[in-house]
Amino acid sequence: MSKDKHTIFGINGCIAILSTRKYKISDIIIQNGSKAESNGQITHLLGHYGGHVKFLSRSEFTQNYGQHRTQGIVVHFIAQIEEDLPSFNDDSGNKCILALDRIEDPQNLGQIIRTAVCAGVDGIIIPKHDSCKITDSVIQVSQGAFTEIPIYLVNNIHQSLEQLKKDGFWIVAMENSVDAKDWHKIDYKGKIAIVAGSEGRGIKKIVLNNCDFQTTIPMQGKTNSLNVSAAVSVILFERLRQLSG
Amino acid sequence: MSKDKHTIFGINGCIAILSTRKYKISDIIIQNGSKAESNGQITHLLGHYGGHVKFLSRSEFTQNYGQHRTQGIVVHFIAQIEEDLPSFNDDSGNKCILALDRIEDPQNLGQIIRTAVCAGVDGIIIPKHDSCKITDSVIQVSQGAFTEIPIYLVNNIHQSLEQLKKDGFWIVAMENSVDAKDWHKIDYKGKIAIVAGSEGRGIKKIVLNNCDFQTTIPMQGKTNSLNVSAAVSVILFERLRQLSG
Repeated sequence: MSKDKHTIFGINGCIAILSTRKYKISDIIIQNGSKAESNGQITHLLGHYGGHVKFLSRSEFTQNYGQHRTQGIVVHFIAQIEEDLPSFNDDSGNKCILALDRIEDPQNLGQIIRTAVCAGVDGIIIPKHDSCKITDSVIQVSQGAFTEIPIYLVNNIHQSLEQLKKDGFWIVAMENSVDAKDWHKIDYKGKIAIVAGSEGRGIKKIVLNNCDFQTTIPMQGKTNSLNVSAAVSVILFERLRQLSG
Repeated sequence: MSKDKHTIFGINGCIAILSTRKYKISDIIIQNGSKAESNGQITHLLGHYGGHVKFLSRSEFTQNYGQHRTQGIVVHFIAQIEEDLPSFNDDSGNKCILALDRIEDPQNLGQIIRTAVCAGVDGIIIPKHDSCKITDSVIQVSQGAFTEIPIYLVNNIHQSLEQLKKDGFWIVAMENSVDAKDWHKIDYKGKIAIVAGSEGRGIKKIVLNNCDFQTTIPMQGKTNSLNVSAAVSVILFERLRQLSG
């Protein structure tokens, strides 16, 4: 896996990147007189990045970044965001890994990462092929949440789930099938991997066949199905509800 | 409230509009050889709209609509989507109204509408001022879900909640405060109105002061807060979980 150049806009996302100390910051561009310039947290963080900070006049800034929602700050950074799936053999207690099988839409992937961090998920698996990667759009939508959670890039979701099973995880597939139990009738305590499928195509057959449980969120409307990121939110917070009880 | 011209793209959204019979269809534009042209449900629906259907070659279609994700179908229609808040005085049993106080982002509003339909919500209140309205972007993101739920446009959320209280509703505010109970410790049975605030500014003080309960979803991450549409998903499906029990 290689280090890539990335760009992020906006106060929350940039604060996340500048706080984490995990990545190499190339440039921080700030618009004079903007919200970002007067933000105390940003001012404080800029102290660590002296030579990399550049202030631009409003017209110069707008010329370069006017088409984005920047709130007056842009950070260019170099990062290797994805990592390899480690062994969880020695872990015990409650643990939750989210495996995303072929999510295509950067908006959905970014939202899912943000929700996963809020719900205390321990890591996200995405496949190398046939899936949206951690692009700048994903980074933007996640508002920097990707800095707070390991993203495991794997060759093969099926094999990764086999490995997780050996490490003591139970595998729960989000799939609307006759075998599926309602989402709140699954026990999410202990070591759990939750698998969500792509927007149009669902979970691959070979992956689905190896899951221990299937779960579904029954729809009340006539025609519509829940967006995948909304469905993931529902499941992850039902897990937290159970753990809190 | 006036009737407005709207446009929707894509197979699911267009099927929703063409099925509902609630709106006046101006034009249906289909790209020859596209997914939409070979879709059986669309072919069946086109039978009802003979004079309004126009087939375009791939190049003509792309010239006009190439910048959108159309799947080969575009529908122009005229609709009065919003309506006035009725009296719910005579209703009994479980009922849920969602009140959105100053949501700004069309992506969030569209997703919330879609989720609300999936979660069997009975209506959505949005204020006339200082809020995103039902624009074409919202229509697009909701994938036509707005056809399945009443959208009440009100002068004043505060007054509307007062009216709902008189009609026997309990008002639950989604607000992270010291008075807030965890989201799964609220009783959502009976007549309930759930109030969600804007992305940056939360719920207006005057509105908040008149709510019966406050509820919050505690965050597990360091810096991030949950997107408002993800938070609404969590609450609405916790309600369904309670109703199913």
